Amino acid sequence: MADTPKLVSSLGRAELDKIFVRGYDLNKELLGKISFAQMVYLMLEGRMPTAEEGRMVDTMLIVLVDHGMTTGAAAARMTFHSAPEAIQGAVAAAILGAGSVHLGSSEHCAKMLNDALPKDSKDTDLDAIALKTVEKRLANNQLIPGIGHGIHTGGDPRAERLFEVAQETKVYGRYCELLRKIGKIADGKVGKHLPVNVTGAIAAIASDMGFRWQITRAFALIGRVLGALGHIQEEMDEPIADELIALVQRSVAYEAADADS
Amino acid sequence: MADTPKLVSSLGRAELDKIFVRGYDLNKELLGKISFAQMVYLMLEGRMPTAEEGRMVDTMLIVLVDHGMTTGAAAARMTFHSAPEAIQGAVAAAILGAGSVHLGSSEHCAKMLNDALPKDSKDTDLDAIALKTVEKRLANNQLIPGIGHGIHTGGDPRAERLFEVAQETKVYGRYCELLRKIGKIADGKVGKHLPVNVTGAIAAIASDMGFRWQITRAFALIGRVLGALGHIQEEMDEPIADELIALVQRSVAYEAADADS
Amino acid sequence: MADTPKLVSSLGRAELDKIFVRGYDLNKELLGKISFAQMVYLMLEGRMPTAEEGRMVDTMLIVLVDHGMTTGAAAARMTFHSAPEAIQGAVAAAILGAGSVHLGSSEHCAKMLNDALPKDSKDTDLDAIALKTVEKRLANNQLIPGIGHGIHTGGDPRAERLFEVAQETKVYGRYCELLRKIGKIADGKVGKHLPVNVTGAIAAIASDMGFRWQITRAFALIGRVLGALGHIQEEMDEPIADELIALVQRSVAYEAADADS
Amino acid sequence: MADTPKLVSSLGRAELDKIFVRGYDLNKELLGKISFAQMVYLMLEGRMPTAEEGRMVDTMLIVLVDHGMTTGAAAARMTFHSAPEAIQGAVAAAILGAGSVHLGSSEHCAKMLNDALPKDSKDTDLDAIALKTVEKRLANNQLIPGIGHGIHTGGDPRAERLFEVAQETKVYGRYCELLRKIGKIADGKVGKHLPVNVTGAIAAIASDMGFRWQITRAFALIGRVLGALGHIQEEMDEPIADELIALVQRSVAYEAADADS
Repeated sequence: MADTPKLVSSLGRAELDKIFVRGYDLNKELLGKISFAQMVYLMLEGRMPTAEEGRMVDTMLIVLVDHGMTTGAAAARMTFHSAPEAIQGAVAAAILGAGSVHLGSSEHCAKMLNDALPKDSKDTDLDAIALKTVEKRLANNQLIPGIGHGIHTGGDPRAERLFEVAQETKVYGRYCELLRKIGKIADGKVGKHLPVNVTGAIAAIASDMGFRWQITRAFALIGRVLGALGHIQEEMDEPIADELIALVQRSVAYEAADADS
Repeated sequence: MADTPKLVSSLGRAELDKIFVRGYDLNKELLGKISFAQMVYLMLEGRMPTAEEGRMVDTMLIVLVDHGMTTGAAAARMTFHSAPEAIQGAVAAAILGAGSVHLGSSEHCAKMLNDALPKDSKDTDLDAIALKTVEKRLANNQLIPGIGHGIHTGGDPRAERLFEVAQETKVYGRYCELLRKIGKIADGKVGKHLPVNVTGAIAAIASDMGFRWQITRAFALIGRVLGALGHIQEEMDEPIADELIALVQRSVAYEAADADS
Repeated sequence: MADTPKLVSSLGRAELDKIFVRGYDLNKELLGKISFAQMVYLMLEGRMPTAEEGRMVDTMLIVLVDHGMTTGAAAARMTFHSAPEAIQGAVAAAILGAGSVHLGSSEHCAKMLNDALPKDSKDTDLDAIALKTVEKRLANNQLIPGIGHGIHTGGDPRAERLFEVAQETKVYGRYCELLRKIGKIADGKVGKHLPVNVTGAIAAIASDMGFRWQITRAFALIGRVLGALGHIQEEMDEPIADELIALVQRSVAYEAADADS
Repeated sequence: MADTPKLVSSLGRAELDKIFVRGYDLNKELLGKISFAQMVYLMLEGRMPTAEEGRMVDTMLIVLVDHGMTTGAAAARMTFHSAPEAIQGAVAAAILGAGSVHLGSSEHCAKMLNDALPKDSKDTDLDAIALKTVEKRLANNQLIPGIGHGIHTGGDPRAERLFEVAQETKVYGRYCELLRKIGKIADGKVGKHLPVNVTGAIAAIASDMGFRWQITRAFALIGRVLGALGHIQEEMDEPIADELIALVQRSVAYEAADADS
């Protein structure tokens, strides 16, 4: 067909009796042999990770699964309540909020780290790079992504734990180090405790593992899909969505501007 | 506040310096210590699974990640192409198709199995139950979910592999056995080879593991989120969405009925 | 291309300098000449409606736009708050709840009406059809869709107004009449005032206008998209989503079952 | 409750027997009395538009409803094919692609116009403003939004028609004029015909009507919801989604990088 360009994908293919993913035979080489976390790495990085890399990915997938009644959990419950025939829709509603303000913030942080210290840079003076990054952001009145948290104001315990696991699994590297230095310098300059938060830690660790900044939201998206499914299932047994929406309705007063009629 | 009912969730809670999920301290007891697959089981079943149960969940999460250029993959790519600023939207578009016809079919199958053999039933004559199930369905002109496949007509190799892992991990039980018997009986009655397919195997294994039928779509939803992320990332480097939509446009002819103007 | 089937659409086509929709030249015959409501009818019914039919569609599109802080409005606000870069995602989250319980209920009602009185039926004894419909539903312990309302218990004023406009625009017909009779008979049988509600009125009027039952949710979907956009815009000026989610979080207690660790 | 802030909305409220929207009694003052297009203006601008303003809004809602087999139409059809029980999900999938590249581009254009000529500016030298805008964009290697089109390379006929209706309805103002001047200047500087396109015209007209730039995507979102519903309904009668996805699958070759196993 002369007018059709050759379109190519290197992800996967389904044949009559075989399925291939990233060059592996799904049935013979992957199923029952690797963990889902390893599959995440294989799909996104294109090579089979070590067991330690897999364990790090497991940890980043788990860390954001649940955080109480988040926006996503509430959206999942309310959507399921109205459309119980389509749990895929309730899950979709939950992840649509994984944007720039909340879970997607890992991308901003990973981009900042990669801009400050490009992948192939040989620069080793992380203190200087951190200082320059903070000063530049503050001078431009820009937020510094990946540090500070609304609830965990004294420090985000999840971030510290992620860094511990990163050290245990030997993926901890210069991006982790750089972000911690940025947090410490910002503390002093802003006059407020701004420790690394959970999406910051994910951004730094993922960057050290080789993930591109644009895909670091993947961990939050996968984790929150599980979180949403948990809330949807709980809603099947112990429904509270109806009360939640009633509560919301009672709390909002209607004050119309004068109509021009 | 007298008019507010007591709303309760047993999933998770965020405190100033601690986060709890299903009674576990997230940082001390879960991060770095369990796999994401175990977290899936913990969130949905409420107890910590054994390592073998975790391995079975890993396998069910992996099996549907990629199957070539599926509807979901195409939707993810095209949505990302139009709205690259919001990959959460492209992922959501991908999973919105996980409905009754394709991936959600595991629920139909799991319901059929649970209707035929309730959880607390002591009935052990699986042959009779299978025969009755097939006959009832055929008499009512109902499809038998979980068997047969459009591409893998000679047998869905993924289903066989899932059953092998189920036996290795010792979760293989009477629902797996029942579905296989249903497949064999249907073969003869319908006069067409109708082996258990991948969503059928997930339905049977999940039922043997104690998952309720209404949540068996969870494995497909989580897996396909990863699949969508893989396609979105590939689209960043080797974009083909534009060509795909052009191809679609060229292939559809416009034939208006006569307008009444 | 021998292996490509001929795929056909009769909706629209874009050419170099012309666009056609349903046989009309978009620029010359539609833009500036018909209302959006007429376009709704043209797209879904395939013929240009009269001005009166257009006015009826306008009314059905308007009636569900806003109803205070509904599930959809709350989902739109919370999603926008987390992902302000993607208002299409906030709008999508709002409509994902337009399912079987709330707005999609018009389809259940329209199906009930069409099952009871098929399009080509000559039966004119609406009292008998209504009685039979109610008795059959009650005997099967089925809800009767389209009647009764949680808030507007004394009668849904929107339904009455829709029927008035239906009479003014001369589209009021036997499906409207049948649903009202069903409501009255159910009142007596159930012992509770069950007047026609807004989605019931839409179902009946749309059926009288020739819309198939499967597409009667269209009016609610379009209307609620506008409602969501209104809430999103208000959130830009007077944000309350953050307070709403905090309110939700404060109202839910966490009660973990004993962990098995 | 001392800790609850006063949350306020001026959009709408549902009472036992009345519903208010923007200060109007829905049943007495809106239903049957105004068009849906007027309702769009009322919801987003907070005041009742004139009949002429309503007609302009009608035209902007209609213009993007259908443009052949767009990304959104294809996504709607494929999602409906997989999940026919949830048309709200298929509609949501369609609008998730209304992002920065395609339909959301009206926001970029409206922002450019508003940045160049703030609402309260008294500057009347549109030629100078247009020249400065083009030069600044080109100097920064930025695209100029709202001009040029992939298919309609000789001029987007929809844009011209929108401007005509804007003149007829007397909403045509300095933002329309400014964008046309920008198009003409860009022609010369870029050396390529770059007439105003449809989302550019919407941006300019909406700005002249007083809509803020952040909400100009509203017209496309509402219009495309109708377009998606049209394609979904056609898919009920004349399904082509299955063939479209097969076509897509046949057109993509799988080329795995060498696996490292």
